[in-house]
Amino acid sequence: METLEQGLKNNPLTGSLFERANQAAASADLDSLLDSTLHLFKELCRAKSGIFFSYQASDDHLHCRASFGEVPEQDRLRGQPLPHNGLGWQAVEQKQPILFTLQPGEAWQADLNALQGLAQVNVLAVPFLSADTPAGVLFLFDCQSPDLEPVRWLSARMASDIHRAVRLEDAERLAGRMQAMVSIFEQIGSTLDRDQLLHMMIESARQVINAEACSLFLVDPETGENVLHLASNLDRGISVEQVRVPPGKGIIGSVVDSGENVLVPDVTQDERHYRNVDMASGFTTRAILAVPLRSRTVPLGEGRGVISTRVIGGFEAINKSRGTFDDQDAGLLNMLANQAATVLQIAELYGDANQLFIDVVRALAEAIDAKDPYTEGHSQRVSDFAVAIAHEMALPDEFIHRVRIGSLMHDVGKIGIPDGILVKPGKLTPAEYGVMKQHPAIGARIMGLVRKLQAEVPAISEHHERLDGSGYPNGLVGDAISPMGRIVAAADVFDAMTSHRPYRSAMPVDEVLEHMHKESGKLFDKNCVHALARAHVQGLALTQPEREAWVD
Amino acid sequence: METLEQGLKNNPLTGSLFERANQAAASADLDSLLDSTLHLFKELCRAKSGIFFSYQASDDHLHCRASFGEVPEQDRLRGQPLPHNGLGWQAVEQKQPILFTLQPGEAWQADLNALQGLAQVNVLAVPFLSADTPAGVLFLFDCQSPDLEPVRWLSARMASDIHRAVRLEDAERLAGRMQAMVSIFEQIGSTLDRDQLLHMMIESARQVINAEACSLFLVDPETGENVLHLASNLDRGISVEQVRVPPGKGIIGSVVDSGENVLVPDVTQDERHYRNVDMASGFTTRAILAVPLRSRTVPLGEGRGVISTRVIGGFEAINKSRGTFDDQDAGLLNMLANQAATVLQIAELYGDANQLFIDVVRALAEAIDAKDPYTEGHSQRVSDFAVAIAHEMALPDEFIHRVRIGSLMHDVGKIGIPDGILVKPGKLTPAEYGVMKQHPAIGARIMGLVRKLQAEVPAISEHHERLDGSGYPNGLVGDAISPMGRIVAAADVFDAMTSHRPYRSAMPVDEVLEHMHKESGKLFDKNCVHALARAHVQGLALTQPEREAWVD
Repeated sequence: METLEQGLKNNPLTGSLFERANQAAASADLDSLLDSTLHLFKELCRAKSGIFFSYQASDDHLHCRASFGEVPEQDRLRGQPLPHNGLGWQAVEQKQPILFTLQPGEAWQADLNALQGLAQVNVLAVPFLSADTPAGVLFLFDCQSPDLEPVRWLSARMASDIHRAVRLEDAERLAGRMQAMVSIFEQIGSTLDRDQLLHMMIESARQVINAEACSLFLVDPETGENVLHLASNLDRGISVEQVRVPPGKGIIGSVVDSGENVLVPDVTQDERHYRNVDMASGFTTRAILAVPLRSRTVPLGEGRGVISTRVIGGFEAINKSRGTFDDQDAGLLNMLANQAATVLQIAELYGDANQLFIDVVRALAEAIDAKDPYTEGHSQRVSDFAVAIAHEMALPDEFIHRVRIGSLMHDVGKIGIPDGILVKPGKLTPAEYGVMKQHPAIGARIMGLVRKLQAEVPAISEHHERLDGSGYPNGLVGDAISPMGRIVAAADVFDAMTSHRPYRSAMPVDEVLEHMHKESGKLFDKNCVHALARAHVQGLALTQPEREAWVD
Repeated sequence: METLEQGLKNNPLTGSLFERANQAAASADLDSLLDSTLHLFKELCRAKSGIFFSYQASDDHLHCRASFGEVPEQDRLRGQPLPHNGLGWQAVEQKQPILFTLQPGEAWQADLNALQGLAQVNVLAVPFLSADTPAGVLFLFDCQSPDLEPVRWLSARMASDIHRAVRLEDAERLAGRMQAMVSIFEQIGSTLDRDQLLHMMIESARQVINAEACSLFLVDPETGENVLHLASNLDRGISVEQVRVPPGKGIIGSVVDSGENVLVPDVTQDERHYRNVDMASGFTTRAILAVPLRSRTVPLGEGRGVISTRVIGGFEAINKSRGTFDDQDAGLLNMLANQAATVLQIAELYGDANQLFIDVVRALAEAIDAKDPYTEGHSQRVSDFAVAIAHEMALPDEFIHRVRIGSLMHDVGKIGIPDGILVKPGKLTPAEYGVMKQHPAIGARIMGLVRKLQAEVPAISEHHERLDGSGYPNGLVGDAISPMGRIVAAADVFDAMTSHRPYRSAMPVDEVLEHMHKESGKLFDKNCVHALARAHVQGLALTQPEREAWVD
């Protein structure tokens, strides 16, 4: 008590030091805590100005955080680390305030070069220590009442609160970023749409990392180039897809090849930087944080094995909005990249599984069509027409997808028709025609057992039914024929009439459409025929002769 | 200063109050901070014992957190909230310590009932306020030096640090839980294996929520029952799959029906609780936190539409290991359940897409086989045999999956063989046999265009090749025949010889295997033939007559 009391003999404070310190410590956040603390010191020492560096355990540095009075270049200093070889760190190591009285012409300490001209009389460096752990260091300039005992006590008094406030700020920031990550993961985990996924990813990353821009590169498996797929914050006029970085070139090439993160605080100092991207985009890159897009091992289940890890591209965050990219940024970007790469891979797997199914169905339909040279390509054209009709009718995507598959398989029942009838050059006898008319029923029997194809079966079973009941195999009437059946019926007739046949040449499209219009309501669904005509006008339903003209 | 100094006239502390407070405040974590603080008060007031309640903003309650001296039922008290209508809250509201001197026979304050018998002389209730925000309240019992001024200052001195330490503990806990969530999301996002996914989910949830056990229910779409699929921490002897909860019954039924979280702190007080699960498991459920498993909307991309939201089951955390389930637990469990449900749905979609492909290939193979009554079921049996061989040879799952598909399609080229030859009852002429021998090449041509089926094509193109070059269509020799081709060749011959034919009856299995053994190395691969024989012994390769015997 004695020395502290002596120091407070000529107490410059309005009120008790001890009460004022408690009031200052009660500030809600770190910024207002530092503000109150600095003003308390200003009053206690009657200082002209001051600047506070707070200690960051993650990089073992003191960073400029707050000031009072006139501090030149205050904004530029903010966040800057204090050199280790100066007065500030000396005070921390000696665990005592150091009063440095200036002699005319004397050189400044290394850490005060930036503050040159701030003080004319003296500099007081006050370490803030909480049980030997530094919370920060305060420089006070031109103090009129530099009694060290109250200063020492007050700095220790505030150190514990400042230390906790710094840790609290870090923990709350980390918790916030992690919460953001969780909701990003929720989002990117819930789409199998590749484009949507990539867009989500790039925008989420930009926000969570506080970058000015982000770019996503995917490896082109054919050429090994890293192709810029998507970039945020670019002028809309620029087609980023044109930018292809040769294998191993640029910071992106180095990331993809090594599979390691790369952090470049200043690209002008890094010869790897590939300037073409900036040139194409008109954007000025200063700093880059780049991480590999590495897909994880995905166990597929049900004895289908696993898909193994690989680097499929890279991800760059460009120019931190405030401050510099740090290890936490790199960690977050890595997590995000890993997750996005995995989901991308799952989306691709799902797409492949679907495509494989369609490709096989198409190959088989072609094989069936090829038995008769006059029906070559028929199933694919009917599928194209049926999809065009469904599109024109603005039906939902799911339904259109089913129309595509169902119509591709509409003639699958021909597998069960003997060749003698199927490819007979001349006219069929009534008995033979009776067998031929069984193909929709045979097809429906073949595919009817596939549980997940129930919605597609009408494309097979009903494509020869007619609204007035004159069709086959069941002579269904009106509403008994499903929308799927009506669409495929229109598409099938349209292809049959516009294609070459052994006994006649292809009929002109206009004539066919006119015929179908005339029969619509009786044989064909009116809406389907109208939709088909509109699709044809737009070039979305090319007939066999029109396709041949294209190829020639 | 005056009153504070007066109060410290007979300073009972060894050393300065102000220095001692700074030392106490420098403690690293909340527990040691409270410990140091309480001992400082003990010394200052010469108290016999004391108990501290810290303020939790999330529920606006003071919870028992620390004590010194003899406090009965200390462990039971920990975490308990302080009633609002007693001495403690009164001190907080008055912002002043309250000294309560006991009169003989006087009634206790409501909040001190639990502490009855602790004090004989007096109780001092000290509020800890940091700028009017309560950090906690301290009860000191039987103080010999209850001077209020230093007590008031010291409580204000420590309040700011305690307040920050509480917030820091909360923030660090939240950050830790969120980090755990991120890594759980990373894990569950990277598997399409349903069982692995469910196991991961239940174990992750148990850990992150600190529950004694977790159980996962999935709705049975047929019956609407909630079926217990998986539970952690149960005796291994119990088959949890037997537990089916009728629709709408139990807490799980209420969660699935309403789609809302349910928190039951004490199941004995909730009539919804369905006791059968405990009865089956021998586990004693006290508290349940239950959330719905709700899959999200999944856009499928490439014009395939979306899969929409639905409740597919529910998820229960049982008995919090320490304390009670709170809103943060419910939030975390919800996030986890949503993500798992979505990934589960994606795994199902992927499984469906694969299954659809296999089912269609199977249906078409059946249709082709069915053209000739003597080859009915042939492709499926060859696929079964080929898979059995590959399994016996311990080949990787991915390869076995490809063997299953390739062998199912091995005769697809028969689509291109005219019926007159394919199903001719008598012997084929050399010219007809020449046509027939084209079916592997035709099949390879049909499927060869499907990019994702390249690995399966040898099953089609090489299933009639023989090691000595005597096979067709290319007369490949030895190593030129792929492992896939060798496996399917062995399976195909085995089925042909063990099946009925128009010109002979089925040959006995032993005879067939003996023949194949004799020809192995010359016609067939030795390893394949051995594997087939082993598989047959184990009942994994049933021939056509053996299957018929099963059905009869």
